[in-house]
Amino acid sequence: MAKMSSPTETERCIESLIAVFRRYAGKDRNSSTLSKTEFLTFMNTELAAFTKNQKDPSVLDRMMKRLDTNSDGQLDFQEFLNLIGGLAVACHESFSRAQKYT
Amino acid sequence: MAKMSSPTETERCIESLIAVFRRYAGKDRNSSTLSKTEFLTFMNTELAAFTKNQKDPSVLDRMMKRLDTNSDGQLDFQEFLNLIGGLAVACHESFSRAQKYT
Repeated sequence: MAKMSSPTETERCIESLIAVFRRYAGKDRNSSTLSKTEFLTFMNTELAAFTKNQKDPSVLDRMMKRLDTNSDGQLDFQEFLNLIGGLAVACHESFSRAQKYT
Repeated sequence: MAKMSSPTETERCIESLIAVFRRYAGKDRNSSTLSKTEFLTFMNTELAAFTKNQKDPSVLDRMMKRLDTNSDGQLDFQEFLNLIGGLAVACHESFSRAQKYT
């Protein structure tokens, strides 16, 4: 059997994104998408550091609507990745700005 | 000082994506983008399991061209995330198909 080398950081990250999506999408009968309830559970569990600072309770409603590009009331894996990408870009820009002043 | 809780899997993943991009983008003077050389180093190091199966050497050239949506010869962080997202979607679909037949 071929020897499996340990995954790289990028491979681990891709695996994690798939595993996290499946964990939350699998909570109801349709396990290929995140329903509104599953999206809220994901946000309040995995991204609580972000959601707990949101004083306006409609922020998550608006995020879900914006992410749901095909407006079917569910987030598929591509729509979920757009959320992660958007957050990563925001973090990256905020780190880059902070570095300019140090 | 506020107690820092350990990051969630999603937070770790966002941090990893930023760290990996910076590690490879930082190899030349322009540390905010991946040059063609940096992209090739990234692909052959982090995604070697993918690149070593490509018999056609022009695959990476074509990938770089397709990812470089603003055609400046460099990949910025958003363009890099599109690559990761594309690979994640392909892996996710291949897992989903495999599960249907098991």
